[in-house]
Amino acid sequence: MAKVTPRTLSGFMELLPADQIKFERMLESLRRSYETYGFTPLDTPVIESAEVLLAKGGGETEKQIYRFQKGDSDLALRFDLTVPLAKYVAAHAAELSFPFRRYQIGKVYRGERAQRGRFREFYQADIDVIGDGKLDILNEAEIPAVIYHTFKSLGLSKFRIRVNNRKLLNGFYELNGMSEKAGEIMRAVDKLDKIGALKVKQLLIDEVKMLPDKSENVLDFMAIQGDTAYVLSRLEEYRQLGSELFNTGLDELIAVTRYLRDFGVPEENFAIDLTIARGLDYYTGTVYETTMTEHPEIGSICSGGRYDNLAEYYTDRQLPGVGISIGLTRLFYVLGEQGLLSDELVTAPCDALVLPMTEDLGAAVAAATALRAGGVRTQLYFEKKKFKAKMSYADRLGVPFAVLVGEDEVNEGVVSVKDMRSGEQVKLAPAEAARRIRAAADAQNGAAVIKE
Amino acid sequence: MAKVTPRTLSGFMELLPADQIKFERMLESLRRSYETYGFTPLDTPVIESAEVLLAKGGGETEKQIYRFQKGDSDLALRFDLTVPLAKYVAAHAAELSFPFRRYQIGKVYRGERAQRGRFREFYQADIDVIGDGKLDILNEAEIPAVIYHTFKSLGLSKFRIRVNNRKLLNGFYELNGMSEKAGEIMRAVDKLDKIGALKVKQLLIDEVKMLPDKSENVLDFMAIQGDTAYVLSRLEEYRQLGSELFNTGLDELIAVTRYLRDFGVPEENFAIDLTIARGLDYYTGTVYETTMTEHPEIGSICSGGRYDNLAEYYTDRQLPGVGISIGLTRLFYVLGEQGLLSDELVTAPCDALVLPMTEDLGAAVAAATALRAGGVRTQLYFEKKKFKAKMSYADRLGVPFAVLVGEDEVNEGVVSVKDMRSGEQVKLAPAEAARRIRAAADAQNGAAVIKE
Repeated sequence: MAKVTPRTLSGFMELLPADQIKFERMLESLRRSYETYGFTPLDTPVIESAEVLLAKGGGETEKQIYRFQKGDSDLALRFDLTVPLAKYVAAHAAELSFPFRRYQIGKVYRGERAQRGRFREFYQADIDVIGDGKLDILNEAEIPAVIYHTFKSLGLSKFRIRVNNRKLLNGFYELNGMSEKAGEIMRAVDKLDKIGALKVKQLLIDEVKMLPDKSENVLDFMAIQGDTAYVLSRLEEYRQLGSELFNTGLDELIAVTRYLRDFGVPEENFAIDLTIARGLDYYTGTVYETTMTEHPEIGSICSGGRYDNLAEYYTDRQLPGVGISIGLTRLFYVLGEQGLLSDELVTAPCDALVLPMTEDLGAAVAAATALRAGGVRTQLYFEKKKFKAKMSYADRLGVPFAVLVGEDEVNEGVVSVKDMRSGEQVKLAPAEAARRIRAAADAQNGAAVIKE
Repeated sequence: MAKVTPRTLSGFMELLPADQIKFERMLESLRRSYETYGFTPLDTPVIESAEVLLAKGGGETEKQIYRFQKGDSDLALRFDLTVPLAKYVAAHAAELSFPFRRYQIGKVYRGERAQRGRFREFYQADIDVIGDGKLDILNEAEIPAVIYHTFKSLGLSKFRIRVNNRKLLNGFYELNGMSEKAGEIMRAVDKLDKIGALKVKQLLIDEVKMLPDKSENVLDFMAIQGDTAYVLSRLEEYRQLGSELFNTGLDELIAVTRYLRDFGVPEENFAIDLTIARGLDYYTGTVYETTMTEHPEIGSICSGGRYDNLAEYYTDRQLPGVGISIGLTRLFYVLGEQGLLSDELVTAPCDALVLPMTEDLGAAVAAATALRAGGVRTQLYFEKKKFKAKMSYADRLGVPFAVLVGEDEVNEGVVSVKDMRSGEQVKLAPAEAARRIRAAADAQNGAAVIKE
């Protein structure tokens, strides 16, 4: 028979078992973290009506979208989790309680040009808090706590949550009479890290057509950095200039940073960063980026912000919110590239591999049943192979414990538990074997996914 | 601005938060159960090359498939998890260890005609054990244990795992010189439950064109039922007739049922059912169906079987296996319809809702941080509303505990924990509050999803 080559499309991540287990642990850790902060899980269809999904229309996104006909229906695959959330909240508003806090972890689709580290199918892990009509600023203050706890749970500690405020930024541009150039300025400022202040100043003069002293103002402002108290004190100097927008933004920034310590966010994992803008239209208040301090080249691994109108394409109802998103597939990929995925996690499908060594398998099966009842992930090896082949299978899988059941064990009513790392082997009653293996497994499986 | 109606496509399940939490608990329970039996999680793309996905070609499935062009690529959405598994194993065989045991829980797509209880996007939850060249019969014997444990963990006890063997069945048809009519006979026999033996006999005579005595033979055979030992003893009577195929099938059935007790499967949840066939081409040995004993009308909620050649369209490598699949979305739907989803699960996004009642939120925030550190799913309520509105929000969400932080509590360094069910309210130090709420939550969240 002619064969079809079994291939996976480029730009689609498909992991081998050991890596898949690490990815699953990451998903698990995120779910637990988001739930700790009182977010409810949500699941929406991957396919939506194209009209609904593209209600906002236009832009880069539309070109990348997977869109197709099925019968008479014009369909499309979701390209993020925000549009489906907007649809969901608009459609079910009457049945929801506000503030509505949801998390969603799911695959989204963008037909980008395939390149290393870029994915066409990738997981996003989003949280959002949606208010009905209004939403207190303190919801924005809590987000850094969620980000901090989430990455900390994954095993990361060398990261910084960078926060800015769009009102503050727009107020500043207003103060300088540069509001209509705000977009261009932000794009130039965005290059600060890469090309430095001098070249950005030149860009502002040459391309944005700003006067030298105005561009100086911009660079002076963007250069304000340091600990939170210091940055806020420097920003206070602008208050007297009388931009209502700026002053509101500053008040919001003060509110957002006021309870940081009570939220458990250490100063070293947090910074006000005035260079952050995050797109143009959508965000209206606090904006967030998160960078790995030793790998700035990776860019932001968790971003988001405050918006005033989640679902304006679907409803007149004012639905302000604040949210963040983690691009999980890419994060997992770069962590792997950087060698930051822990080798301490058990990546075997089981913690105990039961190897029967008698004709009658009753005792081995009963032992496996006892281990499972004791919460041990257990595989029974049924194939008729030599002992060496069985042990080599256990080795290849990286199983922590082999459980041998031979004539002697059957007669004594015990099993032989072999620690595959130390080589140590002890005879134990099945229930006791379950307790010991479970304890060892819990310790190992509790390891964080990321090891810095 | 003109609005687009926010709608979800028909045939796509989208749940409200309380139901979504039940669904998530079901997913969690399945993952844990499959992992207990030593299956490793797998994730494959939703989109595959149409050539790869449709390598087998033809059939009902092809008409239902979501297939589309993107650029030059002919793409399709997976319609089950078996074809992607075949592709995966064929592509990665060199990097896998056999037997390869994987589970996959994911969405699949079939553009069926929409009707009540039928879904175009639905979750399947599959396990498979794949051998390289051969696979011991005892892998087939373990499957009922996985099914039993999985449904038991979900809270179901009134179900029966029904097992048959295709070799036995084909051997029986061979003995009766009816091999070429086997397909038609099986289709008629499949109606036994619905129309009864007499009408099936008439069907066999009128439509399948069988002689009356032959059709009698079929019905006599299918009527063999009872406990496992009895059915096996009746089947032994056919052994002397000399069909090698039948006798192999009988030996397999004996092997599959031999260790049932050691596997922990109670006799009342198990039955040999000679009327089960499960399709025509694919299965070659043991086949499984699972029915809810008080809701036979729902049909099989977990089915599968043994096959000899998982990936013949992709590789010459012989890859026999055994697997089962649960159609989760439909199962969840019918459980809901039957009122079998438990009301005891906490369906609130959090176990504790912290209600600050002072101007300065420091103490409330710190209390929430302490609760979270203690593993309590905690929401902080930030909106400036009257006390009554706050409590009504807690009620609507079904939050088990409200945690009040007012002037008195701040001064005393405690929080007031209000049990929302009993109305009882006590003052506790935050760490002690965390312990109590966590203990109560663990007890409640441990409830099974299904309540019979």
